[in-house]
Amino acid sequence: MFEFQISSKNDRARTGAFTTPHGTLLTPVFAPVGTQATVKTLTPEHLKEINASLVLSNTYHLYLRPGDELVREMGGLHRFMQWPRPMLTDSGGFQVFSLAQTRKIDEDGVTFKSHIDGSTHRFTPEKSIAIQENLGADIIMAFDECSDPNDHAYSKLAMERTHRWAERSLKAQKRPDQALFGIVQGGVQADLREESARFIASLDTPGIAIGGLSVGETKHEMHDMLDVVTPLLPEDKPRYLMGVGTPEDLINGVARGIDIFDCVLPTRLARHHSAFAPDGRLNLMNASFARDERPIDEACDCYTCRTFTRAYIRHLIVAKELLAGTLISIHNLRALIRLMEMIRIYVADGTFQANVPGLLKQWSNNAKRGVIAG
Amino acid sequence: MFEFQISSKNDRARTGAFTTPHGTLLTPVFAPVGTQATVKTLTPEHLKEINASLVLSNTYHLYLRPGDELVREMGGLHRFMQWPRPMLTDSGGFQVFSLAQTRKIDEDGVTFKSHIDGSTHRFTPEKSIAIQENLGADIIMAFDECSDPNDHAYSKLAMERTHRWAERSLKAQKRPDQALFGIVQGGVQADLREESARFIASLDTPGIAIGGLSVGETKHEMHDMLDVVTPLLPEDKPRYLMGVGTPEDLINGVARGIDIFDCVLPTRLARHHSAFAPDGRLNLMNASFARDERPIDEACDCYTCRTFTRAYIRHLIVAKELLAGTLISIHNLRALIRLMEMIRIYVADGTFQANVPGLLKQWSNNAKRGVIAG
Repeated sequence: MFEFQISSKNDRARTGAFTTPHGTLLTPVFAPVGTQATVKTLTPEHLKEINASLVLSNTYHLYLRPGDELVREMGGLHRFMQWPRPMLTDSGGFQVFSLAQTRKIDEDGVTFKSHIDGSTHRFTPEKSIAIQENLGADIIMAFDECSDPNDHAYSKLAMERTHRWAERSLKAQKRPDQALFGIVQGGVQADLREESARFIASLDTPGIAIGGLSVGETKHEMHDMLDVVTPLLPEDKPRYLMGVGTPEDLINGVARGIDIFDCVLPTRLARHHSAFAPDGRLNLMNASFARDERPIDEACDCYTCRTFTRAYIRHLIVAKELLAGTLISIHNLRALIRLMEMIRIYVADGTFQANVPGLLKQWSNNAKRGVIAG
Repeated sequence: MFEFQISSKNDRARTGAFTTPHGTLLTPVFAPVGTQATVKTLTPEHLKEINASLVLSNTYHLYLRPGDELVREMGGLHRFMQWPRPMLTDSGGFQVFSLAQTRKIDEDGVTFKSHIDGSTHRFTPEKSIAIQENLGADIIMAFDECSDPNDHAYSKLAMERTHRWAERSLKAQKRPDQALFGIVQGGVQADLREESARFIASLDTPGIAIGGLSVGETKHEMHDMLDVVTPLLPEDKPRYLMGVGTPEDLINGVARGIDIFDCVLPTRLARHHSAFAPDGRLNLMNASFARDERPIDEACDCYTCRTFTRAYIRHLIVAKELLAGTLISIHNLRALIRLMEMIRIYVADGTFQANVPGLLKQWSNNAKRGVIAG
């Protein structure tokens, strides 16, 4: 059912094709996030037009609202939100630890209060899998605990629990048409990451996720952890770096052998009027754009850049018109998807490693100037 | 430049074609409102897909933000908002009287304070035309005063001033590529409406607008005023009933010889989760839709109805996702545009008058049940 074929390699970077019930993902791939069964402000048609292939949705949010049973009754997540291509759901673990009002963890699971209405709920590995089976995404996650990355003692405890929960998650799975990934944890502790990578790699899963990164550690620490983890993972399984990231993170991740990424950054930036652009991230509310007749990015092929000026988008922002968020979201997502398309070409023709410094320079510049322009 | 050809008549109802620099309008036509150079939450692509032909934008709003000079520098309103089909701007008069914080009217014009920042501004007929020439819509309006419709003495004074302002507006016009309409006023006073219709009809304009209706008077009063006014207007000019209306108003307006309508209702209802539907307006937040797998309207051909269930739209509303407003706006606008398409067919084949009772029954029912469903 789930086949991963590597088509080219360039040092640790690789391109591949991961077959799922809703189509084949060309990797490396960046997945837009549709937390509540919608990529904020965009229709599925917009997502198809920017060549999105994989969309992520959040188990915690959908369990609370509208409820995973309801989604199942409505034919599953693909049909409910009308996304015909591959989908991925997380385990809910990260949101329980980052969003829920209170939480109490024990060996069996976590009891928490909803951030929406304070009602009490309980997730266990079995419950997380049952919810994800109701939602019906193509790729699902084992239930995990994401710990404070700097606390070695607790990270070890959480990692060991995550391993036990991964085994329980696998045992709980009933649907054969969903690829259940185990999640490597271990904070920023090299010894724990190594132990976790070996353990998760030993499980019979069609892919492996790396969790607990991009949660406050430095870029350097993140790269170190990837350098520890990915060499220990089997070549023939796709690797998913959860919740990452920035354009630089995508480049650095691919260089370290990552195949799948997701992040809310492009759409969140869009709602704060910030757009990816070649000379640096633009805060389009800035008065300097009031009469700027250029598109956000002259080299971009998205609907927004083919159609609208910075002046118009700035007007929409100042006038508090919601269309601004839609137009910038289209561009920001397309920018990252286009970056991944470019990276796939570089890896395929063997020039990726040679292009990494140039790509990083372009995008780092972007990030830095963004702060100034913002 | 502006030609109006009547293609069929059915009692007072008629179909026609009004030629403008940005294409020919088939009438009767309903215009979505893009107050701030955007039909709220929709892209121009969405508007094309629902077969919108004419879009209205507001002079008062665009003058204040982003400024009509800026719009002119950006190539005019069509290019700024990327709407390639016909556009219409109002005179700004109605908004000055309904939105501005304070206003002081004299024979020459109106001084008012912006509802945005309290800054002081002044509109005169000459200023309104200059602004509308900067904006560059295909159809523009003479500056007018909309009075309390029930105050006969003041309505007479305001009407007479509106007539003098219409003459000044015509004199101030420099661009030959914009159709400047005079506006009939006169509150709900039959004698004033008659006088105003005769005066405005005597001016050399390519079309005639009827203002000051749907501002709080009864439906009966509005129909009475139309019955007074339209028989006095020349057959060969398009008639525009400003700011109207509901589906019932469109049917009743066409039956009384109106050719052009605009209203914020479809998009405003959408933002309040209310959708036009055959068995009555639906408040889609209602819990009864949580598992409703039907589209909003099974007979509707819009993207929303072809694609999404009521259950999904209700989920978006409950989860406070902005996509809900976009999807319902697409449907509500398409519903009125489709109603006008149907009316044009009925008029053309001579069955409109025979179909009025059925159309009114369908849409009145809609309105009534909407209150219950809501």
